[in-house]
Amino acid sequence: MPIVTFLPSKTTIDVTVGTELLDAARMAGVEIDSPCGGKGTCGKCTVRMISGKVDYEDLGVLPPSAVIDGFVLACKTKILSEDISVEIPQQVGRTNGKFGDSCADADLVRHELLPRVWQYDPLAVKWLLNVAPPELNDGLSDLDRITLAIQHDWGKKAVNYPLSVIQQAADALREENGLITATIIRRPDCYHIIDITSGDTTTKSYGIAIDIGTTTIAVQLVYLPLSKIVATKSDYNDQVDCGLDVISRINYARRPERLKELQDRVLQTINRLILQTCEVGKISPADLCNAVVSGNTTMVHLLLGLQPEYIRLDPYTPTVLDVPYISAEDIGININPKSWIYVSPNVGSYVGGDITAGLLCTDLVTDTEEVNLFIDIGTNGEIVVGNSEFLMTCACSAGPAFEGGGIEYGMRAARGAIERVQVDVESGLAIVETIDNAPAVGVCGSGMISLLAELFLTGWIDAAGKFDRTRESAAIEIDGRAGYYTIVTADESSHGKAIRISEIDIENIVRAKAAIYSACALMLEQLGMDFDDLSTVYIAGGFGRFLDLEKAKIIGLVPDLPKEKFVYLGNSSLVGSYMVLISDEFRIKQIETAKRMTYMELSTDPSYMDQYTGALFLPHTDPNRFSNVLAAKKKRCGQ
Amino acid sequence: MPIVTFLPSKTTIDVTVGTELLDAARMAGVEIDSPCGGKGTCGKCTVRMISGKVDYEDLGVLPPSAVIDGFVLACKTKILSEDISVEIPQQVGRTNGKFGDSCADADLVRHELLPRVWQYDPLAVKWLLNVAPPELNDGLSDLDRITLAIQHDWGKKAVNYPLSVIQQAADALREENGLITATIIRRPDCYHIIDITSGDTTTKSYGIAIDIGTTTIAVQLVYLPLSKIVATKSDYNDQVDCGLDVISRINYARRPERLKELQDRVLQTINRLILQTCEVGKISPADLCNAVVSGNTTMVHLLLGLQPEYIRLDPYTPTVLDVPYISAEDIGININPKSWIYVSPNVGSYVGGDITAGLLCTDLVTDTEEVNLFIDIGTNGEIVVGNSEFLMTCACSAGPAFEGGGIEYGMRAARGAIERVQVDVESGLAIVETIDNAPAVGVCGSGMISLLAELFLTGWIDAAGKFDRTRESAAIEIDGRAGYYTIVTADESSHGKAIRISEIDIENIVRAKAAIYSACALMLEQLGMDFDDLSTVYIAGGFGRFLDLEKAKIIGLVPDLPKEKFVYLGNSSLVGSYMVLISDEFRIKQIETAKRMTYMELSTDPSYMDQYTGALFLPHTDPNRFSNVLAAKKKRCGQ
Repeated sequence: MPIVTFLPSKTTIDVTVGTELLDAARMAGVEIDSPCGGKGTCGKCTVRMISGKVDYEDLGVLPPSAVIDGFVLACKTKILSEDISVEIPQQVGRTNGKFGDSCADADLVRHELLPRVWQYDPLAVKWLLNVAPPELNDGLSDLDRITLAIQHDWGKKAVNYPLSVIQQAADALREENGLITATIIRRPDCYHIIDITSGDTTTKSYGIAIDIGTTTIAVQLVYLPLSKIVATKSDYNDQVDCGLDVISRINYARRPERLKELQDRVLQTINRLILQTCEVGKISPADLCNAVVSGNTTMVHLLLGLQPEYIRLDPYTPTVLDVPYISAEDIGININPKSWIYVSPNVGSYVGGDITAGLLCTDLVTDTEEVNLFIDIGTNGEIVVGNSEFLMTCACSAGPAFEGGGIEYGMRAARGAIERVQVDVESGLAIVETIDNAPAVGVCGSGMISLLAELFLTGWIDAAGKFDRTRESAAIEIDGRAGYYTIVTADESSHGKAIRISEIDIENIVRAKAAIYSACALMLEQLGMDFDDLSTVYIAGGFGRFLDLEKAKIIGLVPDLPKEKFVYLGNSSLVGSYMVLISDEFRIKQIETAKRMTYMELSTDPSYMDQYTGALFLPHTDPNRFSNVLAAKKKRCGQ
Repeated sequence: MPIVTFLPSKTTIDVTVGTELLDAARMAGVEIDSPCGGKGTCGKCTVRMISGKVDYEDLGVLPPSAVIDGFVLACKTKILSEDISVEIPQQVGRTNGKFGDSCADADLVRHELLPRVWQYDPLAVKWLLNVAPPELNDGLSDLDRITLAIQHDWGKKAVNYPLSVIQQAADALREENGLITATIIRRPDCYHIIDITSGDTTTKSYGIAIDIGTTTIAVQLVYLPLSKIVATKSDYNDQVDCGLDVISRINYARRPERLKELQDRVLQTINRLILQTCEVGKISPADLCNAVVSGNTTMVHLLLGLQPEYIRLDPYTPTVLDVPYISAEDIGININPKSWIYVSPNVGSYVGGDITAGLLCTDLVTDTEEVNLFIDIGTNGEIVVGNSEFLMTCACSAGPAFEGGGIEYGMRAARGAIERVQVDVESGLAIVETIDNAPAVGVCGSGMISLLAELFLTGWIDAAGKFDRTRESAAIEIDGRAGYYTIVTADESSHGKAIRISEIDIENIVRAKAAIYSACALMLEQLGMDFDDLSTVYIAGGFGRFLDLEKAKIIGLVPDLPKEKFVYLGNSSLVGSYMVLISDEFRIKQIETAKRMTYMELSTDPSYMDQYTGALFLPHTDPNRFSNVLAAKKKRCGQ
């Protein structure tokens, strides 16, 4: 009777010819999920053939490329007369029930765009090795025997070891009679061993996705054997004290000790967030052996301690776009020190890896002929338009308003942030919703958009963002040329102070939305296109799980298109980083995407200023562009 | 008319068809040596074709393999109608006349065994690049433009940069308008850039050969463009305070803090010697971009901070035999921090890289059928016997006597060391020669051999190494059971103390020579061979520029074979390290040699003790083995 061996547990079972692989697994006590009940539609029972032949009647949900790589659906596979061994990709650690299924912002991305089980393939894998014992006169060193064990399992290629791993080898080998776990980076021409521990530590396999925004940094801890998100944490970039936007940071960094300070600050934020996620997962940072970093080009330069000055100076040349792999310890990221850090490829001076990561969440990188628009709203706004044939990209400086920067009561999308506002037409008073329904602390980006839209629709502010000085409202206070609007009174706020927005705050928000809208408009104009030619408009940004795109349309941040054309992605840079963290196929896709993007330098285009000035109104100086918005306003307040 | 471009200076000249390349160089003002006057016999005018075709009538001294690699003799090459560019391997820095031609111990090695001009190829080369200036919207980062320049000159392969080099790139590029010098390690699949400086610093290209002996460390600074030795320095290994031989060091290293201490001590010695050679060459250690380290297996483990305990314990398994490339900064060697350190491959627990380096100085690695013997006499004695078909090797513990360790007035072969002694038959008084004819300080290994041989030949010591108590000599003092021999009186020594040798010192020397002789005898016996089957016996060791092999024969250190069968090589480990430092071909040869060596563990062979005991006499207990020696003694003193 044929013998089936299940890896990595090496459980074996004798079965009769014709047994279904899923049944064989159950008989062997090996757990394989099968929520679709064997219809072949969920793909959860995907396993990988290591040796032997089987009969599969149906590919089910598997793409032919996965079948070439040896993946089959256990529910659609019958065992022939031959012995086989199969690997259960999901088995390692699967009884460890601590992970939820929620992928945070990944939930906002269409399921079929995320890596599937057969695409799980992180850069470094933890691999259990049974190394032969030393023998007299066999002429083999400890390292030689480890190399042979790796080559036995993975094929004959050169094996490289850093000194720290060589220093661990002798004792690790002898502690559990040659049973060791090696952390292996598989490259086309060789293997790099970045860690060796005694015994089976294959379940201590985690990765971290890091999104470095100018204002906000977010990290996501991922349990790699299952590609499950363990924790997501975000915080302000500690660099904000040194300048609110990219240009001020570049100016700040001109003195070497200040460049060092900026590098230290971003590392301090990242390492703090990593520790927080490790606390959630109850693991040590040393268990993290993979990391992906995505950020705009300047953020990447500052992280690496590279002088960013030349990005700001004509001809705007960054030192690096495609960052080579650098070890965690060389950069200063506190995970397993020899881990290789993958930095998402940058495209130009102001379009970085956060965008090439974010694009993975969109149809711009799928095989589509329809032209789509991707807008990432952060301190810089980045815009990509294209399809499978072309990708054009540009950036504009929006400022940190949408992330709460430069706004008196602005804040990130965190607990207590006002994220939705309704304004009463008559009284001008606001009703707010906060994140987690907590007492209000401040206003986050989505709240500001909501507030401005409501104030405009109700006529309490005009197209220039100024309060209506002809009417009286308990919420509005005019002090000479300055005007303030109270969103939440001191009694109701969490900190006993009234949460207000000033006309200056509003000006900042209007400038931010104008920068983004005009960049989109200019790029389309240069391509001879119009907003109406777009099939889908993807909006990304750290607005949290919610962004009212109808309200964004009212203030003129996004074009006046039908609702169904908009897709909100959340922090697509973080989701894209998660994708490339868990899948080599997605890393390759990202690198190829970066290569086919054409970067436009907006700052050198004389017509940008015209576009920008036209957009410095609510919703725009050109009423034809936002006729639906103006109609809605008329309906709401009669003006 | 065809244009000839000479690299690396990029000097060009128009010449007529049929001009000899050597003449073209002279017309262009490019210096090429031609001491044989154009006969093609010296090989000094070797140049490398980079592009274009030429007509060479004769290969001269060049091997066909060099011609395949593009080397031609300028004196035998005529220019055709086509433009060509050629590289002058010796040109860089050649007007800098500070280097002598002496290769120190390399002078003891047959000229044809040393790397030739067309084999000069260090691991890292300094290369002048003219990088294109940055341009708006070319989509290229600083690193991209450097990569393109490298690929233009060296071919399209991936280019890797460590973070520290990326950090240097932007400023280096802008300082001299894109003229930079990159230090490039060319690997089969990619290039590694370990340094970037602005301007032309190609002449700051040095390498260091390092021989780590248990007792003595020697380093040699080499100017790489010419493969010239700038300085050689040696000193006691600072580890000697922690134990005189390999086994005591291993025992000492068992506590982690002591392993660290031993590592620090060897690094301290190496770095001190590197600084001394740099002072001679008037260069900075940062100009060193290549290093080769050769040492016995234990010394290599201690250098790398690897616990050597398992070398000493059955089954005698080292952690590493083939050491991967490790950066200078990771090990702690004070040269350009990103330099890759090449460690000569080790063969077994007690046969290390010093032996695979040393073998390069012998005919054991040439295409010969004659069986040769190689003996490296240090604190450990290592022995290799073989030819192009087989190589057997073993080691024995000789102790540090021949390097001056454990002998009251013992010293290294340095200024003031007694290196040759004559003893008067009648009076028993000694006449000595010292290194540099300086006042005597102590006795080095060659002096001890000379002294013991003379005392034995003149009958002042017997076969057991005891003084003749039946005769009186002003030089001999008997104090109970102890005996002393004054070599140099207090008046004549450099330090005002008499330089003496005791019977205990003599015992140490006899044990050392017995260990080595018996290991040779046992290995030959196991191969079914005899000393008479040997074609050549190579003797290596830190005896300085002089070792009287006739005297070595008299004490029974080496077998009683005709004089012409012996070749003294000096510090062959250092010379071999120099060879692999300057030539990739020799690195490959060394690695292949290490692979075909069969290691015998002598300590587990029961017949070794018998052989050793038999050799604990002068010259041996078996008179038939040394009949010539005994005849010489009879002739000298009548006994």
